Amino acid sequence: MIDKLIENIRKTGAPIVVGLDPMLSYVPEYIRERAFGEYGETLDGAAEAILQFNIGIIDATADLIPAVKPQVAMYEQFGVPGMVAFQKTVEYAKSKGLVVIGDVKRGDIGSTSEAYATAHLGRVQVGNVSLKVFDEDIVTVNPYLGSDGVKPFLKVCAAEGKGIFILVKTSNPSSGEFQDRLVDGRPLYELVGEKVAEWGSDLIGESGYSEVGCVVGATYPEMGKVLRKIMPKSYILVPGYGAQGGTAKDLLPYFNEDGLGAIVNSSRGIIAAWKKDEKIVAENGAGYADAARAAVVAMREDIAGIF
Amino acid sequence: MIDKLIENIRKTGAPIVVGLDPMLSYVPEYIRERAFGEYGETLDGAAEAILQFNIGIIDATADLIPAVKPQVAMYEQFGVPGMVAFQKTVEYAKSKGLVVIGDVKRGDIGSTSEAYATAHLGRVQVGNVSLKVFDEDIVTVNPYLGSDGVKPFLKVCAAEGKGIFILVKTSNPSSGEFQDRLVDGRPLYELVGEKVAEWGSDLIGESGYSEVGCVVGATYPEMGKVLRKIMPKSYILVPGYGAQGGTAKDLLPYFNEDGLGAIVNSSRGIIAAWKKDEKIVAENGAGYADAARAAVVAMREDIAGIF
Repeated sequence: MIDKLIENIRKTGAPIVVGLDPMLSYVPEYIRERAFGEYGETLDGAAEAILQFNIGIIDATADLIPAVKPQVAMYEQFGVPGMVAFQKTVEYAKSKGLVVIGDVKRGDIGSTSEAYATAHLGRVQVGNVSLKVFDEDIVTVNPYLGSDGVKPFLKVCAAEGKGIFILVKTSNPSSGEFQDRLVDGRPLYELVGEKVAEWGSDLIGESGYSEVGCVVGATYPEMGKVLRKIMPKSYILVPGYGAQGGTAKDLLPYFNEDGLGAIVNSSRGIIAAWKKDEKIVAENGAGYADAARAAVVAMREDIAGIF
Repeated sequence: MIDKLIENIRKTGAPIVVGLDPMLSYVPEYIRERAFGEYGETLDGAAEAILQFNIGIIDATADLIPAVKPQVAMYEQFGVPGMVAFQKTVEYAKSKGLVVIGDVKRGDIGSTSEAYATAHLGRVQVGNVSLKVFDEDIVTVNPYLGSDGVKPFLKVCAAEGKGIFILVKTSNPSSGEFQDRLVDGRPLYELVGEKVAEWGSDLIGESGYSEVGCVVGATYPEMGKVLRKIMPKSYILVPGYGAQGGTAKDLLPYFNEDGLGAIVNSSRGIIAAWKKDEKIVAENGAGYADAARAAVVAMREDIAGIF
């Protein structure tokens, strides 16, 4: 899957992933009203609203971007109907040729980790039948439980040609509470980075990059520089650009000299761009998808400027 | 919720939680056949099988135990129908007076962590309506992202009278890869433990225990002893008893002198007990729930023997 991601990045010239993290407050009123009109102010109504919102965003941006990253929490909060919307979002994005990174941050051990890998990347056996489930292309994984938690994902990645991005250094202010603590004089996130390189070493694609990538926040470029060297074959998924304070010039250390190696996420900055765009967008929010497209173009140019 | 958990523990005399982690291979053939007969070898069929299996276990054990712990991964692997089975399992267990600990190990930041807390413990706002979602009583939380990830859960716990158990030291062999690394001469899990005590300090129930508990594996009793002192007011959820190798005598350090402070999980040891019990169980698995009940009684006696 890493090869397909890189192919998509090359084709679009945009190392960008759009975070599909739709809060109801990001969904224009006319979409919410239509959904609530059909299903009431229910979980079904909310799920329909975010699905229709996503479809608009995907339609408006799919030719410009290599990938989307739905954040499952935003769907899970609407219960079972929300998970239906998640599944339909994944399917719809894949039908448009996008790589889908499920931002699920799952992590457990043994058979439980296997079940998560099955749910999001693999196939589950039911009687004599083997069934795909949510079937994202890549998912994010939490490393706190160590190799026991990660290995079942590696197995599914090998079998299905899928990928994972492991949390190494997250973009939030309190990420340092544990991740930065010094172990033998080096921060914990470096040790996690070394493990990422090790876990990924048997899953190198034709591109030379591994199916095992990592997450390193844009808000810590100095750390990004060190981690880039520790995991030269791992793609870095970089959150924190835009709304969280990371700027384009902070991004350079995350890339390798081949201009590859990093993909930058923006969620709010794209999908809620319409709230700050009075030129394209009507008062009821119509035109929100055009505003998202314009925000992607601006982000692409912003990032191109650093090379 | 911690007060209700303690009340249930006192009432039953059993500091035991039954892990509802149903693999299809744990479900007796006659239940699978009935479910597949109705829904086919589909995700719906699998979900129906595990739901009916769970109902049998709950009916057979609810008077003996304070709580159940469904492991969401085992439901998520059956997709949307699996999440329906998860929700119905939570509802059914609550209807029997059990405290439901959702073993979800979620962890993210800011609004995403809020969404997870909403999904599992809180209420989501849809238009003018505030709706409960999966509505467990307590959930497990991953601490790798620091306070930013935990605080949204604390807010929901305070508003809804719910609880969380934060992963401190997990029961698996590779848990030491990161959790045991020494920071200023002390293992990382101790620092996490100190944070747990801090996060829980404003959420103390009438029992004197906090809504913020922790997870410490039964497989590390020496570490349990130290952590018990670091977090005197936190309940410890102890996995790893039985199938993972922890024995009853290993459990004493996890309890306080009041005989409270810990609740021991067993999953396979209870729900798959029928596979080793040829006296009660028929060849097709009928009697599996009686075998689970017998395993709970044996576990209760085993643990009572340590005091």
